[in-house]
Amino acid sequence: MLKIGVFGAGGRVGKLVAELSSNRDDVKLEVVYARKELDFSVKPETLITSDLNVLLDSCEVVIDFTTPEGTNKLLEVALNRPKPMVIGTTGLEENHKHLIKEASQKMPILCATNMSFSVAILNKVASLVAHALRDYDIEIVETHHKHKVDSPSGTALKLASSCAKARNLSLDKVMVNGRSGRIGERNKDEIGVMALRGGDVAGIHSVNFYGDGEYLELKHTATSRNIFAIGAIKAAIWLKNQPNGLYSIDDSLDI
Amino acid sequence: MLKIGVFGAGGRVGKLVAELSSNRDDVKLEVVYARKELDFSVKPETLITSDLNVLLDSCEVVIDFTTPEGTNKLLEVALNRPKPMVIGTTGLEENHKHLIKEASQKMPILCATNMSFSVAILNKVASLVAHALRDYDIEIVETHHKHKVDSPSGTALKLASSCAKARNLSLDKVMVNGRSGRIGERNKDEIGVMALRGGDVAGIHSVNFYGDGEYLELKHTATSRNIFAIGAIKAAIWLKNQPNGLYSIDDSLDI
Amino acid sequence: MLKIGVFGAGGRVGKLVAELSSNRDDVKLEVVYARKELDFSVKPETLITSDLNVLLDSCEVVIDFTTPEGTNKLLEVALNRPKPMVIGTTGLEENHKHLIKEASQKMPILCATNMSFSVAILNKVASLVAHALRDYDIEIVETHHKHKVDSPSGTALKLASSCAKARNLSLDKVMVNGRSGRIGERNKDEIGVMALRGGDVAGIHSVNFYGDGEYLELKHTATSRNIFAIGAIKAAIWLKNQPNGLYSIDDSLDI
Amino acid sequence: MLKIGVFGAGGRVGKLVAELSSNRDDVKLEVVYARKELDFSVKPETLITSDLNVLLDSCEVVIDFTTPEGTNKLLEVALNRPKPMVIGTTGLEENHKHLIKEASQKMPILCATNMSFSVAILNKVASLVAHALRDYDIEIVETHHKHKVDSPSGTALKLASSCAKARNLSLDKVMVNGRSGRIGERNKDEIGVMALRGGDVAGIHSVNFYGDGEYLELKHTATSRNIFAIGAIKAAIWLKNQPNGLYSIDDSLDI
Repeated sequence: MLKIGVFGAGGRVGKLVAELSSNRDDVKLEVVYARKELDFSVKPETLITSDLNVLLDSCEVVIDFTTPEGTNKLLEVALNRPKPMVIGTTGLEENHKHLIKEASQKMPILCATNMSFSVAILNKVASLVAHALRDYDIEIVETHHKHKVDSPSGTALKLASSCAKARNLSLDKVMVNGRSGRIGERNKDEIGVMALRGGDVAGIHSVNFYGDGEYLELKHTATSRNIFAIGAIKAAIWLKNQPNGLYSIDDSLDI
Repeated sequence: MLKIGVFGAGGRVGKLVAELSSNRDDVKLEVVYARKELDFSVKPETLITSDLNVLLDSCEVVIDFTTPEGTNKLLEVALNRPKPMVIGTTGLEENHKHLIKEASQKMPILCATNMSFSVAILNKVASLVAHALRDYDIEIVETHHKHKVDSPSGTALKLASSCAKARNLSLDKVMVNGRSGRIGERNKDEIGVMALRGGDVAGIHSVNFYGDGEYLELKHTATSRNIFAIGAIKAAIWLKNQPNGLYSIDDSLDI
Repeated sequence: MLKIGVFGAGGRVGKLVAELSSNRDDVKLEVVYARKELDFSVKPETLITSDLNVLLDSCEVVIDFTTPEGTNKLLEVALNRPKPMVIGTTGLEENHKHLIKEASQKMPILCATNMSFSVAILNKVASLVAHALRDYDIEIVETHHKHKVDSPSGTALKLASSCAKARNLSLDKVMVNGRSGRIGERNKDEIGVMALRGGDVAGIHSVNFYGDGEYLELKHTATSRNIFAIGAIKAAIWLKNQPNGLYSIDDSLDI
Repeated sequence: MLKIGVFGAGGRVGKLVAELSSNRDDVKLEVVYARKELDFSVKPETLITSDLNVLLDSCEVVIDFTTPEGTNKLLEVALNRPKPMVIGTTGLEENHKHLIKEASQKMPILCATNMSFSVAILNKVASLVAHALRDYDIEIVETHHKHKVDSPSGTALKLASSCAKARNLSLDKVMVNGRSGRIGERNKDEIGVMALRGGDVAGIHSVNFYGDGEYLELKHTATSRNIFAIGAIKAAIWLKNQPNGLYSIDDSLDI
């Protein structure tokens, strides 16, 4: 049973990681880093600490869903106390990525902005199909809740980018995010990436391949944001036995 | 058995109307107007004429899929030889519509750019739902073959317009045809109308209503362009017994 | 602001009703009936009582998600203290329904096993389309989580029943719940009702109409069980101003 | 430009192969085997013969969509005049398969009952996902026109079989073709294969994977039966350069 340490249990996903890992048989929530009282309950045997050294020493893998600054602080301490690390923090910039790269020479680090395992599968499969059905037209559609402020979603852009790469295309030259008016026939390299917004949809992504007389749709629907926490836990289990290095969620797929 | 006259059997849909009406028990292809030889065969008892008077005199309903000019010519003759008329001609302008309106005082005329009966049902139903689920977010998606030059499709615009009207909104103020970048939260009145293009898709239209914890999708898929010809024949059967006046396909729905 | 009383706040949906109604502007959680301590917190001004008389006297509408026995007890007291009542209790048998019918002469009662407003809309719309597209083949598919023990879902049966009724058919003569082997061509009156099971799906229902060259799909997806609680609250708001009588969720639809 | 010979141009798919290969730049319809007059026109340079020896000698690859007896006859002649061969004949029994196996030692033979290239891709991808998402529940749904007499479709069975194999399961032990009544919770190994029938649907197949908080749908829609003919032509182009042996459509995929 893998001993997990959670950094950032005050955040939404970090809290979910802590809660969900309490209910599984394959992992144990060994330690939680928190500077103030938790707003959820953990088992009596779980250690709560505000000392990064204790966090790193008490567990086998750390899961980090914090801020770029938080991740930075964690990594600096970890350089001297290496520990496998799953990082789901978003908004990382070049300097943070540089530090992660450096740290990954001393410990295995898996870094991803979408920890869903099956979104990663979708990405892999979409890439295979984009290559195999080279003359099919690709159109991607994503749907998210009405409060989302940016479009298209990061995941949709990743999917589009993988499809473009599979065809040796540069996404910024072929992406289309809307169609209006008398715009003429579709260019064969075009990749449509359309964003729908509404309700409280957690996330739907579909990658469509249109050919003559047939089409293929690959569609992922998330109904709960739990999947990011579940994905991080799965990634932690996988990461435990990997050599030092920097990994993406794709590396953990058995496909 | 309704005696049908086809005006414009040289065009794609007109030809389909002629062919399909030859194979049904509820209508009879009585007469076809053609100025040159037909590129398809009709039954020996079907009359072929290049005289509009003969066309109008020989049938019970005329089905017209031609050009604005063609429709004009037909109507001018029909003013003195009134006959129920199904008009599917596209590209009609104000002057043509004016003449249709005038002619409809002397004969029943059904005029529609999309003759599919079940697209009309979709339109009706979407309008009902847009009204009943007032606080749900509406997003419309249409898919057509890669050769289509205009976006969104006329049918998608009609669907959007019906939904807007059901909520007392003006479509041109609330329609969104693409989303890209940091555009902020969705406006509650927004109606997304997104166009996908690819392969040889005959036409897919979906109207989506997103609420809290649930969503409703109304989706029509056309797999054959026959449906426009079939719809025109059904409309002709219905029109036969209507009083003089101008009708849309909606009027013929039993809903 | 409607004063709501919740009977059965210990159950899953009852608890949701209490929690959600605390967060709305159009209703106020005035009173909760509970015989033991609540496992969730309510506002200080909410009355907690274990006396049915107090429950009935303190609110404008009672929402009841309990057991047949619970509902019975509530109704017996309410006969002398009439109050509009939304009943979502499942498993009601003939004698319970008889008592509800009787009570509804003294107060308006809305009784439904699926309180989702948009499922009710789907049911209404499916019925309209089943009638309007009389010669289209109907196939219904429902998907629910892997723990569901009965198939097809009650909602799918209701949808099928509405479609059958719209065509003057008897569902038990035309329903098909599986197809295997050389079973021959589809009978035109057949209504397929297929159940898929998997994961933790909250509920997906689609009603499909297949014609020549086209098909229409009406599909509802629930991503959260909140929708039943939200529906009950909406129903309560509507019921407040109705005359005595027995109502279904359909009666409350603005369609 | 590959010289194609069509055996069975009197049948529906064989005729399509002949027609479609006349309109492509990458193949040439060199010879058609026919014992009576063709009911469609070919280019003047296309040879029409009723001699199997001439058929085999005049082309680079033979495409055969006939009957088991026809295929047998062709193979017997081909044993002495080996030629790459694409066989799409259905209803082959053990003795026919035995002869094919034997003949494939002298020439490359690709044998498939569904020649659609992207259905083959779907099959491959479904198998990969079934393996990678081992703990997800699999449900397959297929839809075909109302005249189809057997259920589920051969393609759906193939998809189910590939998924079962990817999990080391035996399909006949885990397949479920319908659900009705109080059947209890889903068995985790179960693979649902549900058949919908209606209208004139050419063929829809979806393979669904349900997990916790998410699901993945892989869906193929055929809108035209042309895809089988197109697939056979693509297979012929691929087969031309393969060594002797027996191939399936899967072998030709670039995935």
